[in-house]
This record gives sequence, structure tokens and C-alpha cells, in this order.
Amino acid sequence: MRLKATISYDGTNFAGYQIQPNARTVQGKLENVLTKMHKGQPVRVIASGRTDQGVHAVGQVIHFDTNLEIPVENWKKALNTMLPEDIEVLHITRVADHFHARFDVKNKEYRYILLHTEKKDIFQRHYSYFIKEQLNLDAMKKASSCFLGTHDFTSFCGSNSTVRGEKVRTITDIAVIQQDEKIIIRVRGTGFLYNMVRIIVGTLLEVGLGTRKPEEIAEIIHVKDRSKAGNTAPAQGLYLWKVFYEEKS
Amino acid sequence: MRLKATISYDGTNFAGYQIQPNARTVQGKLENVLTKMHKGQPVRVIASGRTDQGVHAVGQVIHFDTNLEIPVENWKKALNTMLPEDIEVLHITRVADHFHARFDVKNKEYRYILLHTEKKDIFQRHYSYFIKEQLNLDAMKKASSCFLGTHDFTSFCGSNSTVRGEKVRTITDIAVIQQDEKIIIRVRGTGFLYNMVRIIVGTLLEVGLGTRKPEEIAEIIHVKDRSKAGNTAPAQGLYLWKVFYEEKS
Repeated sequence: MRLKATISYDGTNFAGYQIQPNARTVQGKLENVLTKMHKGQPVRVIASGRTDQGVHAVGQVIHFDTNLEIPVENWKKALNTMLPEDIEVLHITRVADHFHARFDVKNKEYRYILLHTEKKDIFQRHYSYFIKEQLNLDAMKKASSCFLGTHDFTSFCGSNSTVRGEKVRTITDIAVIQQDEKIIIRVRGTGFLYNMVRIIVGTLLEVGLGTRKPEEIAEIIHVKDRSKAGNTAPAQGLYLWKVFYEEKS
Repeated sequence: MRLKATISYDGTNFAGYQIQPNARTVQGKLENVLTKMHKGQPVRVIASGRTDQGVHAVGQVIHFDTNLEIPVENWKKALNTMLPEDIEVLHITRVADHFHARFDVKNKEYRYILLHTEKKDIFQRHYSYFIKEQLNLDAMKKASSCFLGTHDFTSFCGSNSTVRGEKVRTITDIAVIQQDEKIIIRVRGTGFLYNMVRIIVGTLLEVGLGTRKPEEIAEIIHVKDRSKAGNTAPAQGLYLWKVFYEEKS
């Protein structure tokens, strides 16, 4: 029986999503709990994709297979009882055996949260990126629209990327939204390269600060050179917000 | 030269304010940094009062003495550079040599933050107390007003209290405020007993849930018996918000 779960986690105290020896990872915790439930029989968890150290998830999606005779409606509570307090299962359903949390992804939404206030708020330090400088939101909005559509995003791919092959991706939606003291950069697309959202945000911030012009974005994309884009915005502002699948799943 | 500093800290990773051996404390970090700045000469820090493990501060006040030749306007940056990321100095001024951060307190304000939503938010778990049950806010407001004024608060004093002598305190202001998904219980008074705010909140919550009536508060105060009041609300919702002194300081 294959189960699909939507999970949220606070990335602060994880060395990222993906399992690695001697590090606290989300996948490690999930597999550890599931393996215990299966009396030591290893259970592999497949996610829609990884998230880096310090990056959060509001709606990460995973799947795993089980032969346990637990009614599907009891799984959420069973897992939440055993998982640490910084991972939470929000929703769990049975899916077809051919459902795949990574291969079947149709779209992903990330949000990046900037705290735009005069004073730093230490209670927000792990959950947003603080910026006190004045930002030209109109310029940021204008620049953001240049990312829309299908492009080779080599200039927005972190140099540690393990992606081989083409770096063409499609951004279907991007918005810069002011919400009280926060500025939210919402990006939706069919797929993302390593650090892509954080480099887009870092570049948009430079536009907001006036050190770049919105018109430069098209050229930065065109040259396919990471060094021409902005800095990588820090991990703690980034949230994997939602993963979309075809109706069938 | 005596300096008065207003500081904020995230209580999550501290074993409380007060210094103790082999534990990470706010006072310990402050004195450690100051002692380093004074080339090993120990510096004692006096706060307006302690806060417990997990309790936060938005406006804690401390004082300390120094013989360093640092202009007062440079102190804030100097300290913030050396302090860990979960303590922040907001403001620092020179005060008269007789100013005392504890003895001169005129009033203190605490706020307790309840997250009143249908779904738990793991990003808020260290910064508010999640309660999904329906709450009768009118009953809570009515009950809260019974705390106003000068009373013997023995029933609202934690059993680990080290306070000897009388337990008469004055609450000058108390409010139950709904703010979007949050309910804020704001309490201002001349002094507080051990766990007093958290027991008041725990008792108000029972009123909100309907297991107690607002009319019972006066009787609970009257009997001077801790076991008659409600549970102690958890630490993570509590913030030492502001400390007030006489004009002179």
C-alpha cells in the first residue's frame, strides 16, 4: 500500500531534507520513525525534492510503501506521535501504487519571506530575512515578471548544483507581495534548479535596493553565467510552500 | 559609570535568565561578554528580575558598571557584535550611579500569546501557546478584571517560589485582546510572584473553556491556595514585554 503525506517542517535544526550520516535530517527522522513502526524493516521515503539546511516546508509531499494494517485515517496521528516537534504530518492519504512524489510533480510553489522593518526582530531570525534598507517594490515587481516563462536558468543555478543536462525551467507565476511588515516573493514553476529561488530573490533584492535595474534581468538570464546574477538569499527566508500533482494523485 | 540596557531575548535555547553552572543562561552570556570586554575582570549584571526557561523578553532591563572608555553610543553595537544571535541589545544609556534595574522597577508588563487557530503552526511552537478549542473571550475578559488591584496572590504563586514574606501584589492593568489568530493577555503590575502570570493565564483559559466561571476568581484569590487556581500555562507563550522606572532613571 502506497501512502502520500503532506508534511511541514521547521528547517532551523535540520541539516536539510536529505538523509546523510551523522546529521539530523528530515528524511532521516521520517525513515527512522517508519522503520521503527515496521519493526526494523527499512522504509524508504521519497519526497518531491530536497530542501537545504535551514529551509522550511509548509507543504512538502512524500510517499512511502507500507504493509502495516493501520487504517489510513490513523496514520497521521501515529506518525505525529513519534516524530520530533519540528516535523508535522498535515495530511495523509492512500494513493495508487504508481504515484511518485518526485516524478509526478506538476508544479511547485516556493515563498520567500522578507522582514522589512526598521528593527530586527530576534523572534523572526530563523523564519524570515531581515532587511531594513528601503526597497523599490515597483522595480522588484517589474523585474520579477522577466522570470516568467521558459528560460535556461543557468545564471540562477547554484555552483554546487549536481544537475547535469539542460537547465531550462518554466516559471508559471511570480509575485512580490507586501503584507504588513513582510514582503513575500511567491514563485511557482514546473521545476527548480539548486538555489534557484534564493538567487532569484537575491537578484530581486538588488533591484529593490537600486543597485540593478529591472531591465538587466533579461540579459542576466541570456548570458547563462551564475556570476552575473545576485547573491544567494539566506536559507531561513525560504519555504517550500506547496507541491502540485496531476488530478489522478 | 553605570549603564542601563534594554534587551530582547528568545528564551527557547536558554535555561532561563539567571546564571547557573553548566547551563546556557542569558545572564551567563551577558556577563561572559562583558567580562571579556573588561579583559577578564568580572562584571556583574543586574536585571529587573529573572525569567524562566523558555520565557522570552522583548524589553528586559539590566544595569552594569564599567570603567571602559567606550562612548555610550558605541556600546550597543559593541555588545551586539559579541552576543549570541538570541540576545539583542535594543537600547543603552548612561544612568545615575544609584539607578538599580531591580529595586527601582515601578511597573512591569508581561504579555502571554495564545495561538487560537484550528491547526497547529510548527513555526510558532516556541513563541506562543496553541489552543484550538473554542474560547469564550467575554468570560475571559470578565474574569481578568477580577485580578485588578491589590491582592494576596498566594493562589497564583508557583510552589517552587523562593519568595518569603507577604505575597501581596498590585495589578494595575489587565487585558484580553484578540488580534487576528492570536489572543494576547497583557498584564501590568507593580510586581509578580513566581509563575504568577502563567497561573493567571492558565486560570483564564479554564474560564474561556467553560470549566470555570468568571465569578470564581475572587474566591480563588480569597482562599490563598495554589491548588485552587488553574494550571500553569507553558513558558513559550510568555514575554517580559516592558519594564517601567521612575522618570529619574
